[in-house]
Amino acid sequence: MSATTNNSRPPIGVGVVGCGYWGPNLVRNFARQADARVVAVCDRDADRAARVAREFRVPTVVTEPAALVRDAAVDLVVIATPASNHFEIARDALLAGKHVLVMKPLTTRVDHGEELVALAERQGLMLAVDHTFVYTGAVQRMREMADAGELGDIYYVDSVRINLGLFHGDINVVWDLAPHDISIIDHVLGGRLPLEVSAVGACHAGSRTENIAYVTLRYGPELLAHVHVNWLAPAKVRRTIVGGSRRMIIYDDMEPSEKVKIYDKGVSIAPTSGADEVYRQLVSYRSGDMHAPRIDMREALDVEAEHLLECIRTGARPRADGAAGLRVVRILEAAQLSIDSGSVPITLAPAPAAGSSVVPS
Amino acid sequence: MSATTNNSRPPIGVGVVGCGYWGPNLVRNFARQADARVVAVCDRDADRAARVAREFRVPTVVTEPAALVRDAAVDLVVIATPASNHFEIARDALLAGKHVLVMKPLTTRVDHGEELVALAERQGLMLAVDHTFVYTGAVQRMREMADAGELGDIYYVDSVRINLGLFHGDINVVWDLAPHDISIIDHVLGGRLPLEVSAVGACHAGSRTENIAYVTLRYGPELLAHVHVNWLAPAKVRRTIVGGSRRMIIYDDMEPSEKVKIYDKGVSIAPTSGADEVYRQLVSYRSGDMHAPRIDMREALDVEAEHLLECIRTGARPRADGAAGLRVVRILEAAQLSIDSGSVPITLAPAPAAGSSVVPS
Amino acid sequence: MSATTNNSRPPIGVGVVGCGYWGPNLVRNFARQADARVVAVCDRDADRAARVAREFRVPTVVTEPAALVRDAAVDLVVIATPASNHFEIARDALLAGKHVLVMKPLTTRVDHGEELVALAERQGLMLAVDHTFVYTGAVQRMREMADAGELGDIYYVDSVRINLGLFHGDINVVWDLAPHDISIIDHVLGGRLPLEVSAVGACHAGSRTENIAYVTLRYGPELLAHVHVNWLAPAKVRRTIVGGSRRMIIYDDMEPSEKVKIYDKGVSIAPTSGADEVYRQLVSYRSGDMHAPRIDMREALDVEAEHLLECIRTGARPRADGAAGLRVVRILEAAQLSIDSGSVPITLAPAPAAGSSVVPS
Amino acid sequence: MSATTNNSRPPIGVGVVGCGYWGPNLVRNFARQADARVVAVCDRDADRAARVAREFRVPTVVTEPAALVRDAAVDLVVIATPASNHFEIARDALLAGKHVLVMKPLTTRVDHGEELVALAERQGLMLAVDHTFVYTGAVQRMREMADAGELGDIYYVDSVRINLGLFHGDINVVWDLAPHDISIIDHVLGGRLPLEVSAVGACHAGSRTENIAYVTLRYGPELLAHVHVNWLAPAKVRRTIVGGSRRMIIYDDMEPSEKVKIYDKGVSIAPTSGADEVYRQLVSYRSGDMHAPRIDMREALDVEAEHLLECIRTGARPRADGAAGLRVVRILEAAQLSIDSGSVPITLAPAPAAGSSVVPS
Repeated sequence: MSATTNNSRPPIGVGVVGCGYWGPNLVRNFARQADARVVAVCDRDADRAARVAREFRVPTVVTEPAALVRDAAVDLVVIATPASNHFEIARDALLAGKHVLVMKPLTTRVDHGEELVALAERQGLMLAVDHTFVYTGAVQRMREMADAGELGDIYYVDSVRINLGLFHGDINVVWDLAPHDISIIDHVLGGRLPLEVSAVGACHAGSRTENIAYVTLRYGPELLAHVHVNWLAPAKVRRTIVGGSRRMIIYDDMEPSEKVKIYDKGVSIAPTSGADEVYRQLVSYRSGDMHAPRIDMREALDVEAEHLLECIRTGARPRADGAAGLRVVRILEAAQLSIDSGSVPITLAPAPAAGSSVVPS
Repeated sequence: MSATTNNSRPPIGVGVVGCGYWGPNLVRNFARQADARVVAVCDRDADRAARVAREFRVPTVVTEPAALVRDAAVDLVVIATPASNHFEIARDALLAGKHVLVMKPLTTRVDHGEELVALAERQGLMLAVDHTFVYTGAVQRMREMADAGELGDIYYVDSVRINLGLFHGDINVVWDLAPHDISIIDHVLGGRLPLEVSAVGACHAGSRTENIAYVTLRYGPELLAHVHVNWLAPAKVRRTIVGGSRRMIIYDDMEPSEKVKIYDKGVSIAPTSGADEVYRQLVSYRSGDMHAPRIDMREALDVEAEHLLECIRTGARPRADGAAGLRVVRILEAAQLSIDSGSVPITLAPAPAAGSSVVPS
Repeated sequence: MSATTNNSRPPIGVGVVGCGYWGPNLVRNFARQADARVVAVCDRDADRAARVAREFRVPTVVTEPAALVRDAAVDLVVIATPASNHFEIARDALLAGKHVLVMKPLTTRVDHGEELVALAERQGLMLAVDHTFVYTGAVQRMREMADAGELGDIYYVDSVRINLGLFHGDINVVWDLAPHDISIIDHVLGGRLPLEVSAVGACHAGSRTENIAYVTLRYGPELLAHVHVNWLAPAKVRRTIVGGSRRMIIYDDMEPSEKVKIYDKGVSIAPTSGADEVYRQLVSYRSGDMHAPRIDMREALDVEAEHLLECIRTGARPRADGAAGLRVVRILEAAQLSIDSGSVPITLAPAPAAGSSVVPS
Repeated sequence: MSATTNNSRPPIGVGVVGCGYWGPNLVRNFARQADARVVAVCDRDADRAARVAREFRVPTVVTEPAALVRDAAVDLVVIATPASNHFEIARDALLAGKHVLVMKPLTTRVDHGEELVALAERQGLMLAVDHTFVYTGAVQRMREMADAGELGDIYYVDSVRINLGLFHGDINVVWDLAPHDISIIDHVLGGRLPLEVSAVGACHAGSRTENIAYVTLRYGPELLAHVHVNWLAPAKVRRTIVGGSRRMIIYDDMEPSEKVKIYDKGVSIAPTSGADEVYRQLVSYRSGDMHAPRIDMREALDVEAEHLLECIRTGARPRADGAAGLRVVRILEAAQLSIDSGSVPITLAPAPAAGSSVVPS
């Protein structure tokens, strides 16, 4: 949170669509930024919108997204509605010349995501996606270590996000929880698409939507990522392991203080055509110290709000931009297709503009 | 360990083939049984065999399995050699009229396993497989709860077995570690084959064998099991979650005392054709007490040795019999095939004698 | 939080003195009660008071406690100032005919506490102390088990409350943290004074106030309680163990879900005058199941606010009344005296009205 | 374990008195040393002695300590009998010209300990005490950090050793468990006596010996150590915290891998005579990284046996010598006196030869 206001520039007007579970958190975090003002909120439930407006002294309350999008005081439209509405509202906002931040997942279809990315590009507007974890100190630290080569070659990422969660009627556990894991993986790996996605899931208790699923991302012969999401688990687990040839990381978001543990462990193998006995002796293990660096514990949404306002000011590309959101949707769509077709692996077509989709660190 | 010897019957003669890592544990545990005597050990490395013989006062030491198998003093042949030798030694032992206990996996090929099962049946001899965990108090407790219906419908089993492990030159992590998880799953589910198996794995650090793998077992539209095995992880995890409609279990083998935690948690959903709002209200969560029952902490190998001797005496079928070993090999072979063919799902043919393969509780 | 307002009775007017760290939490929790209204806040720092008033729409803002105490709209004065001011403000409030809730510790001197208790009695007003933990589901559960005899004879209570905390300039770690532990112990044991108190502490880093201390409470030859408080610890620990002859409890407030674990463990000894060998055989251990009951996780301050309003309505004695607050101050004063005199044990004179000091469960 | 034998010197003959719980561990660890030979074992229970002798091929078995002490083949007498017998056997052994290793506690009386230390000095023989933890990689690392000034000024040591333990008929929990904690504290602090000791304990379940106790060691106005020992706790805790001005350590012996965690945390206070507001601002906290160094996990008894044999060869003073054993007995005796006299603090007379009691690192 910037403590001082730069008087030479007017605050950025923020309008938030959707006042359900996540919307008020966004209002609160934009409201505390020195160079922004939440000028409008929108919810189909007028009472809900009014409550949020009262709490944060938001002047304008509307029940139709279209009204908010047309509001001249709004520079940035923040979309916190159910995923199925993201595309239409975001398109209208971009067409109306507004910058846009969309909750995850960016859209529910790849073609919709492509259209939004292209539209934002044409309009010269910011399109950002709320991959919240990308703005945590923990994930930033992992990205920095990967970039600096401190992990060596990355061999795998294993991510588990399970608990006794809220069954949704219209979205399954893959679309609900896996965007967190996939966006973390995408960010740590520097923003690139896997070659292939496969997934398996199951529906329980008469539900028509998957409440447990396993998603595998194959990035190459040596690099595998795997996600376990589950709404029907007895305990809450939020843990990502990154295995590299030089170091390994366990990121446990349930730990109150030491969330990121870096292990100076690894193995090196000198391949040989000799007999078994010889072969085994060429494997050497390394098991050294563990290190838990101090992590920036600032609230991710506060970091994100400040960062996005800065991007709007400077024209810089946000840390989680439309391209990142689109990569995640490509993976989710492939995972869903794999589930629906009996978990056969789905090959991802190379992204049309892969070069421009690299996440800035 | 039986404290008293029944004088009316002579002790059962045990011969152990393979004095490497696991063999001496088997010698020690059979040696402490009142109604057994370890009469012979065998290892191609004569020194290694001699050391074990000295420590446990074993009279006969040989370097060829064939010699041990022909030894008239031997009633039970215990095979603790590398997996690729299991079939031949076990077949010879059965042909020589000996009862057989084989380390996991039973064999490295399904046809070999089928031949052993059929041969033991024809000869009227015991064929057992060392699925060690099946003999722990923890897994027994889980089986009993499942059998008694205390878990309700079982929705999923999720098993993780990872650490910085020993790379083997001749066997991958699936054949090395997953037999533990699969035999636990098989036992808890009452001994039945999944309909379909898929798996994915990766080799690292120049190794030619997979050191990380994910295996999915589909038992039906609602019941899924999943195994994560990994030799290249920074921390040791040994954890199996069983999710049921009435209760859920976390079995954490790394916990020093409370290994099995039973959660009185669940969800029930009354499906409806109404709108979303209505639908969600019909989901009801239950989040109650957690209970960690006192578990029998007796060493599994001791329980197993006593049980197998009793089976030989009475002709009863062992808790982990040849059929159980064969089911695990079927799954491993399918998993390997899935890995080798780009992780497509492999349908398992119905077992020829499914009726007889039910594990006795 | 009561969801409905009883229209037949006017809301109770609440005035809060002190808008520092804890005050706003109290304002928020009283503000959400259906049958209360926060009508005034007070802080010597006018800005701080105004900020809180704005957030919670409190009509009256004053900077002098005397002004709030005289406010006719105020029925209950909540005192959240530094401990040294508690006595004077509470006395004035009681003299002005107001009910009073004081943060812990009730006062900094026993005679002050005695005067408040007597004054409240004379005036027929409620005097309550904010022993927050007494209003948690966890501590309530422990009290209920103790009352029901489920623990058997209580042998000891061991309480640890350590972290890298805030050094206070005017109060030491005993007066700051130990009231939590002592009020928990007092509540679980049914509200009785120990016979004897001893304590030891140390000042560090040039500070003139103790930042680490150990306090021992002797309740009888068999019953001991012990408290470790520490502002200079590398990790946060909040753990109370209750050892009974039938069952033992570990209450770990840092656990996210299973805060209270009940162990069916114990020992029974049949004393004997025989030789050592015989003596030992008469000791029998019991090590059974562990049980973590579902605990009411409602915010303690919400429970407390609702309870105190009900006490005002009905004239019932609050769960943590003036007598409870006074017992804690007696112990703190004795602990301080013990520290100051080289940790000699201090005998507590029997409380003047011990009969009336029993905490209602 | 030394892998090679130095042929130029004959092995040291070791005799072990006491074949109960701990004795066989000592036999095993001395037996595996290349330059030692266990030549005799002794136990009043002839069967027990014979069993140990058989397992480790010890040639001489006696039932009287005097016989072992007189055995010309014995160079080092290892005493693993109940504590009350330590003095007499150790004295006889020293008088017979043997080196001596005594289990903890060295003796049950200070004057006995003084006599042994003086006698060993006069005879020019090694007198060592089995403070096992002093030989762990964890405690060594802590000692090295303290010596190198990496902790800054040490402010406190807090040690907890609790579980559902074995009630002894003849020794209480202070004499049984606290020697571990006190010897760790003594070693980390460089081998010096506290100025003052106080303790409190309680007996339960009809037992005549304390099964829970708290012992406080005051080393100076700023340096405090505290020990909690308890045989009647529901869970096993083995944890020592060292708080220093520069760094803090948590040594948790129950952790399977990261036993020692070093926290770069602290506080510095610039004292001031100003008002409270100013005072607080001069306190500055530091909360940095945590580091878990790789610790030597070799079995402590193996390290100890090798070290003591080396001391016998070279005449060097062992890491835990008679003086260290005596310091621990002084503290235990003072703690017992404090318990017996209502927990008044006991001042320790300065050790007669404090200069010579410094533990070599």
